[in-house]
Amino acid sequence: MAETSVQALVDALRRLPGVGAKSASRMAFHLLQHDREGAQLIAQALQQAATRVRHCSLCHTFTEDEVCGTCRDPQRDATRLCVVETPADQAALERTGAFRGRYFVLMGRLSPLDGIGPRDIGLDKLFARAADGVVQEVILATNFTAEGEATAHVIGEALRQRGLQVTRLARGVPAGSELEYVDLGTIAHALVDRR
Amino acid sequence: MAETSVQALVDALRRLPGVGAKSASRMAFHLLQHDREGAQLIAQALQQAATRVRHCSLCHTFTEDEVCGTCRDPQRDATRLCVVETPADQAALERTGAFRGRYFVLMGRLSPLDGIGPRDIGLDKLFARAADGVVQEVILATNFTAEGEATAHVIGEALRQRGLQVTRLARGVPAGSELEYVDLGTIAHALVDRR
Repeated sequence: MAETSVQALVDALRRLPGVGAKSASRMAFHLLQHDREGAQLIAQALQQAATRVRHCSLCHTFTEDEVCGTCRDPQRDATRLCVVETPADQAALERTGAFRGRYFVLMGRLSPLDGIGPRDIGLDKLFARAADGVVQEVILATNFTAEGEATAHVIGEALRQRGLQVTRLARGVPAGSELEYVDLGTIAHALVDRR
Repeated sequence: MAETSVQALVDALRRLPGVGAKSASRMAFHLLQHDREGAQLIAQALQQAATRVRHCSLCHTFTEDEVCGTCRDPQRDATRLCVVETPADQAALERTGAFRGRYFVLMGRLSPLDGIGPRDIGLDKLFARAADGVVQEVILATNFTAEGEATAHVIGEALRQRGLQVTRLARGVPAGSELEYVDLGTIAHALVDRR
């Protein structure tokens, strides 16, 4: 594999998250030996996305336009604003069909150890949007991880100080699960938040 | 994530081996949010490799030239020919420093269930090269998997019928494993103990 453009490809593929030397070399072999069309396709998709995709000026998610489709949709309830970490989280919520409001996508979470502060996740923009006079409720749907919880706490405190109604996705036992197999922290939370 | 070029990128990344919907979406997010330079780099490397890389006319490995660097190297012992499945296997053997002969890279293995026959792994070319009058020993270093063993068996029988000396990597290599993942000492021992 010492030949230059094969090695350059292996090195480049290692920039993908979760891909080490062995996976990269396996991917390169597969594409060059069995799927050159796929290689060209990925190259074009990367180039196109890297040059065209920017952030929605309202909700911060990926879009090719000034404002994304969800923010432009007049059918959606502008009084409810749901805050999520990533477009993938937004997609998960959309698939439930249970929310018809608008979104703000942080494109990350607060993570002081990684040097990610309020500016990096666009909190100024979020606070401005939440205080536009139309939004009546902000639903915090960041992940239930340490960093997601911390992010929700910081945003929640700031918005409450501005007099806004702030809610958080309910913590509890996942649908379809048996108590015996649910971790203790989750059961404890579900007990505290019982209704 | 409904925006078109983001979705097109996610779909394209799923053509990588071992990458499903979730990994692809995570990769797309990482590249677009944190590493656009990396995205461009991967795109260029893919395009370059897909257009430039072809197969060495002597040993079948990836190269940008008519004949690869290893086959051109006059320092290498032309009397010994080592047969491996992939360039990664060849690289593993090279790292041991225990072999200074030439290679033939099958770029696959016999696999009737997947429709991969002798023609697909260039056996005609291998037989012609092994019978060139210079090669005195053919070392079979296919993987010690069912398909690798079957491939070694088929090649070995054919070459012995042509009156050539054929050896197989010693069974120091743990059965069922693939060369790419074996530690160097084991591979070196297996080379010394070839039979």
